[in-house]
This record gives sequence, C-alpha cells and structure tokens, in this order.
Amino acid sequence: MDTDAFLKTLDYAILKPEATMMTLLHAAACCKALGVGCLCVKSCDVPFAAEQLAESGVAVAAVVGFPHGNTVGALKALEAQLAVASGATEIDMVINVSALKDEDDEGVEDEIRAVVTAAHPAPIKVILETALLTEAEMRRGVECAVRGGAAFVKTSTGFAPQGGATPEAVRILLDAAAGRVKVKASGGIRTREAADAYLAMGCARLGVGNVLPLLTEAERARFGV
Amino acid sequence: MDTDAFLKTLDYAILKPEATMMTLLHAAACCKALGVGCLCVKSCDVPFAAEQLAESGVAVAAVVGFPHGNTVGALKALEAQLAVASGATEIDMVINVSALKDEDDEGVEDEIRAVVTAAHPAPIKVILETALLTEAEMRRGVECAVRGGAAFVKTSTGFAPQGGATPEAVRILLDAAAGRVKVKASGGIRTREAADAYLAMGCARLGVGNVLPLLTEAERARFGV
Amino acid sequence: MDTDAFLKTLDYAILKPEATMMTLLHAAACCKALGVGCLCVKSCDVPFAAEQLAESGVAVAAVVGFPHGNTVGALKALEAQLAVASGATEIDMVINVSALKDEDDEGVEDEIRAVVTAAHPAPIKVILETALLTEAEMRRGVECAVRGGAAFVKTSTGFAPQGGATPEAVRILLDAAAGRVKVKASGGIRTREAADAYLAMGCARLGVGNVLPLLTEAERARFGV
Amino acid sequence: MDTDAFLKTLDYAILKPEATMMTLLHAAACCKALGVGCLCVKSCDVPFAAEQLAESGVAVAAVVGFPHGNTVGALKALEAQLAVASGATEIDMVINVSALKDEDDEGVEDEIRAVVTAAHPAPIKVILETALLTEAEMRRGVECAVRGGAAFVKTSTGFAPQGGATPEAVRILLDAAAGRVKVKASGGIRTREAADAYLAMGCARLGVGNVLPLLTEAERARFGV
Repeated sequence: MDTDAFLKTLDYAILKPEATMMTLLHAAACCKALGVGCLCVKSCDVPFAAEQLAESGVAVAAVVGFPHGNTVGALKALEAQLAVASGATEIDMVINVSALKDEDDEGVEDEIRAVVTAAHPAPIKVILETALLTEAEMRRGVECAVRGGAAFVKTSTGFAPQGGATPEAVRILLDAAAGRVKVKASGGIRTREAADAYLAMGCARLGVGNVLPLLTEAERARFGV
Repeated sequence: MDTDAFLKTLDYAILKPEATMMTLLHAAACCKALGVGCLCVKSCDVPFAAEQLAESGVAVAAVVGFPHGNTVGALKALEAQLAVASGATEIDMVINVSALKDEDDEGVEDEIRAVVTAAHPAPIKVILETALLTEAEMRRGVECAVRGGAAFVKTSTGFAPQGGATPEAVRILLDAAAGRVKVKASGGIRTREAADAYLAMGCARLGVGNVLPLLTEAERARFGV
Repeated sequence: MDTDAFLKTLDYAILKPEATMMTLLHAAACCKALGVGCLCVKSCDVPFAAEQLAESGVAVAAVVGFPHGNTVGALKALEAQLAVASGATEIDMVINVSALKDEDDEGVEDEIRAVVTAAHPAPIKVILETALLTEAEMRRGVECAVRGGAAFVKTSTGFAPQGGATPEAVRILLDAAAGRVKVKASGGIRTREAADAYLAMGCARLGVGNVLPLLTEAERARFGV
Repeated sequence: MDTDAFLKTLDYAILKPEATMMTLLHAAACCKALGVGCLCVKSCDVPFAAEQLAESGVAVAAVVGFPHGNTVGALKALEAQLAVASGATEIDMVINVSALKDEDDEGVEDEIRAVVTAAHPAPIKVILETALLTEAEMRRGVECAVRGGAAFVKTSTGFAPQGGATPEAVRILLDAAAGRVKVKASGGIRTREAADAYLAMGCARLGVGNVLPLLTEAERARFGV
C-alpha cells in the first residue's frame, strides 16, 4: 500500500474531553496537508470541523454516544442526525455494552438501526469496545451491526482503561463479519508496524490518535513534517 | 455525623459501561438495605432503577452527557428531561470541558441552564472534571453553574485517567461556590477517612463506586453485610 | 355492545392548542367517572394527565408530530419516548403526509418503526389524515404502518380543514388492514349513530372530541351527567 | 417601498401537510426569480429547501413546534438546532398557547430561550397565534418573547380556524413590542393592499401563502409571471 492509500485508511481522532479548538485546528490542517482520509471528532465539534475541511476531500466523522454508549437509542439517533446535518459524513457510534452483556441483542440492533436510519446516507461504524467483551459477545455484536444496517464494526473507543484494539479482537471481528461489514481497528495504534499489521489482516480503516508517528522518515521528509 | 446521616450523603454510582442489570440490582438492594441517599445510574438505566427503588426513600440520579460532556446542550437537556420523566429525581451532568478551556463561558452556562430548565424540578449537579482543569478554570466553571441555576458542583466523573476528587480541588470549589451552590466530591473516594475528610471540609454529597468499604466494622455488623 | 364496552372503545381527545389545564382536568374526571377507555392528550400534557388518571384504569395516549406530521422521524421517536416515560401508555403519531404523496414509502415506514421502537411497549396508532389522501395513498399508508410495527391505523387528526373520518375512508383502511392492524376512526364523530356505525364496520377504537353527546338519554341518566 | 424592498419583507410559506416536493421546488424557484426575502418551510423540508436556495440570497426559515406548539421546550430546541444545522437561517416557533392561557409565563419564556440558545445565531420569530388570545395574553406573550431573546413576534400560523393576522392584533403586538422585537404579520394576507397596510403600520416582515397575487400588474409584467 503506498503512502497516499495508507493515509486514506486513517481516521484521525480528536476526542479527548479537554481537547480545545486549537488542537482541532491543527489536526484538521494536518489532515488536509497529508491527505488523511477522515477526521473523527466529538459531536459538538462537527460544525467547526466541517467548516475547516470544506472542499478538502477529508471526511468528517462524528462520534455518537461516546465513549460509554449508555444513553437511549432515540438520543443516539438524534445526535447522529444533528451531526450529519452539521456536516459529518460518517458516524462512529458506541453500542450499549451492558445491553449486549445482558443478552438484549434486539435492543442493541434497534439502536444501531435507529442511528443508521437517522444518519442516512452517512455510513455507520459500530464501536463494540472489544476489551470489555468475550469472544461470544463480540460475535453477537457483529451480528447486531449487520442486521442493523451498519457499514463497519470497530474495536474500541480508545478510552477504555482495559485497552484498545488487539490482533485477537480484530481477528474475531473479521471472522464474524465475513465481509458483510467492514472492520475498523482503533485504540492504541501508535506505530506504523501496528497499523500495517491491522491493514494486512483485512481492516478497511484505522482509528489513530496521532498521524505523525505513523509516518516513515521518508514520508515525513516528503511532507516536510 | 452518625451512620444514617453519613449514608444519606452518599451517591452510589453504577456507571461502568460494562455494568449489567445484575450489578444494578445488587446496588439498588444495598441502597435500600442501608438507607443510602441516592443511586446514581446511566441514563439508559433510569427506568429499571426507578422501579427497583420506588417507595424506598432512595433517590435516583441520572448522569447526562456522561462522561465526556461533548454533545450539544439541547441533547443534554433532552437526555435530562427523559431521565426525569423516567423516574430520576436528580441529574449529574458533565460540562463541555473544552468549551470552558476555550473560554466559552456563556456556552457552558447556556448548557447548564438548558438542563436545569428541562429537568425542572430535579436538582442539577454540574460535573466539572477538575482533574482536567486549572484553578482558574474551576472557578469559572463554578460561576457558570451558579448563573445557570445548578444546585451542586461536582468534582469528577470517576473516569478521567488524570484522577478524581482531591482535597485541593474540593477546597477550590467550596471557596468559589461560597455557599451559592453545594459541592459534591466524587472519584476515587474509597475509604471512610477520605469520605469523612471531604464531609468535614464542607461537601454536602459524596459520589462513591462502592458503599461497603466505607463502613466501619461496627456498621457492617449492624447491617449484617 | 353495552354501555361500558362502548365507552371502552373511546379515545377522548383534548388536543386544541388553546385547551387549558381546566379543560384537561374536566375531561380526565369525565373519563374516570364514566369509564372511558382512553384520554388522548398533547405530548406536553402527559405528566399532568398521567397524574390525574393514575390507578384509574383509563389509559393515557399522547399525540406525536401533531397535527401536521412534518418533523423528522428521530424527533417523533424522542417525543414518543418522552411521552411514554412521562406516563403515556399509547401513542397516536401523524405520518409525514407529503412523504407518502412523494412516494417515499420507505421514509414513512422508517418513521413509524422509529416511533414503535422508542415507545416500546406502548402501542402506536398511525394517523394517516385520510382527508388528504387518495385511496391508493391510504392503502400504501396502511402497508407502511403494518411493516413499521404499528398496532393501529387511524383516519384523522380532527384538525384538517378537509375533514375527518368518513365511512369510505374507514372502509378502505379496514380492507387494506385485513386484520393485520386495527382501525381507529376519528375526526367529526359527534353522534352515537355515527359512533355505532363505525364500530359496526369493524373499528376497534374511536377518537372523539366530546363524550357526553354520544351518550343516550338513559346513559346520561345512569351516570347523572 | 419599491418592489424589491417589498419582496424582501416576504416570508413565502409552504407549510401545508399535503404540500409535496414539487410545490416546494416551484416556491423556491419563485423566490429566486423574484428576489423574495425568505422561504418558510416545514422542518423536515429544510435540507431540500437549503439545497435549492444555496447561494441565492433567499433565506430559509423553518417552523418549529408547528402549528400547535404543544410539544415540550427541549424538543422544540432540538428541532430548531437540527433545522439550523440543515441550512435554515431563521426559525419560526409556535409558543405553547395553553401554557400562556394558564399563566405559566415563565414556562413560555423558558421555551423561547431554549430555542434561541439552541438555534443561535439564527433569529427566532415567536408565533403567538393571536386569534386564540385576548389582548392581555398577547401582551404577556410579547413580554415572554422579549425576555426569552426572540427577534420577532408573529401573529399566526395560518392554520387556526379562528383566523390569521388582523389589524387589531398587529396594532397590539407593535404597541407591546415598543421596538424591542420586530413584528411579523401572517395568516390570510392575500392582497397587496393588505400587505401594504401591515407594512405601513410598522411590520418588518409578512408571512404569505402565495406571492404572485400580491404583485401589481406592472410587477408581474416586469418579472414575466
């Protein structure tokens, strides 16, 4: 995969509660300068991000129900619809992990479908927070995402103290998805080696907290960063 | 302060995304058995918690915009109103920390007022997430809470990796509040000594993740727990 | 059908924008005294109506997207969920008539499903506003309601200047529904003869703006009204 | 007032529930061709209207809580914020008439403020539905609008069977407003004479259901319509 294609697979995530407008501004500039595929932002930051990235070719993704996923589905749907109206073109929503653990798969699926419907036509990435899940739970979560109409399943918010993406979790998601939804790995991806490994496994998208450390020296020289 | 009065100051918080209905059921039973003042739950869990605690004298608080606070004010307001309609009698809302850092105090105050209005007459506790704030930011946050009509300011969500309540942060909140709003300390309070110290400083309420470790041996014997 | 069974089929609707709390209070008292099946109220009036009718056996229905139906589905879903949380046990939602006319049946169905999901387990009555529709549109509307999971289709809001229920419209809805959803006639039903005729046709519920004029002299004497 | 200035005072309203996309398309084209100030649409139609009128100089207003105003304030606020995010630059919201009649002025003011805050910086026109109000109620409604931060008070939805704007109602609103908010007359304005009379009285904006009948023969010739 060449550099440009690699950068297109990245969702640059600026999601810390303490991240200010200046941080967002720098990240947006970085995305534009390097041709990063997508900037992933808090839902309250969508209008600003969309303005910064207008006509840039960089997508804006908004997180919804982030990071705990413990609001009701109708609120997640409205948060997603408002984000799309404000300029987001992709949505990363967090499932209700406890509902999945309580085997309320229908509830999880209903929430996903409500977000898919409200955010139409933006593709939905369903964050399962795999570090909190057993393999069986991950597989049930993938089925909910497929039935609910999602475009992606995604491993992690990046905020669970138990950790982010792991090769094991990604392998399970890819296997369970079986091509019916794409897989995004996220959480703790801080080196090019890790990124390349997840892409080689079959991930279609990677969530990262910083793009620069993922570039080779040659790439940094090319971009002058 | 005697045991019963002490227990009345506690908000027992069941907020982990992976916490299941069984966990909530146990916590509700504990609150009823011991006479804990309040059970603090995820907004999606309010109907279940309210049902468990009906006629018990234990209040139900719902968290809103939790834990990052990065949705828009109108959504926080609706989440609060839905929680109150579902049986919550108190609301713990997270401010938009980045807005406070970006000196958009009016925006922070507007969000608080929107939640206060929508959740009326439930009292609002405003979570500042003090571990992310400078002293000046904490003081500005308290002013926003006062002007917005809140009943409490609260130190922490319990989920910031930078930490929860500290005596320094509580002292600042108490000083800034100057009696205009009450202060709730939360995050990392795991011993009776810590709890007693915060109450002695002037906190009106404490958020805790587990009540049992806060009881003395004599108290545990009395309750048979 | 005896008097008590007749009264159980009625949704007493207090929906005029200028109707005050006193009007609602009288209607609630009437429902309790006579054993009317359901009081149908504006969504902002649900808390008051539910309080008045607690333990009375009279259901509380809330109208959603009323009377024009021209908000988005995610908002209708939240309005319904908030109404149910506030004490409504049934929802009467208005479809997006223009979407049906523009042949966006999928959009109409999605809205209904979003409301059904958010209001679960409250049954949903789908108001088609038949006076604005052709027969073909009515039939398509019924299919949307069936596929979306509704419990009822309903003729009218009572506010369209073109009129309310007609025998022709009711016949079409009953035929199209074919037992898959129930039918509620509403709008302009002001005599016992009209009410009895709609029930004889197969309607399961009737929406009325006033109950007293529908009673026979004997019934009024029995109730002392 | 010359023709162009006259046309700028008009809000061309396409609000009937049965109005299709084709009707909206024609109205948008008319606004562009003639230089009408504003197209006023249902909130579900904002994305389409905004797309049609992009770069045209014609404003897009969305109605909120329309036409009965009987949802709760937090929902009106979200409807407004979603409309603004979708491209509306002005909001026409309906007050809760029954709350005003029940003398809950604080509730009416709170709703207006919630919409003003959520829709910021779009100006808010507060529809009082004057045909349902006494003079004293109109005056209280104007005070609520002023205190809540509205830009305009507006007479009517155009859908109350009791009627729309009248010179008497407009005179009361203008007198009560005393320049603190502007006044929009709407509902039943179907001739140029009526329009000119309301403007001469001091109205800053007029809501009309059709623009063409308001043009003089000379103006229609100029525009070729």
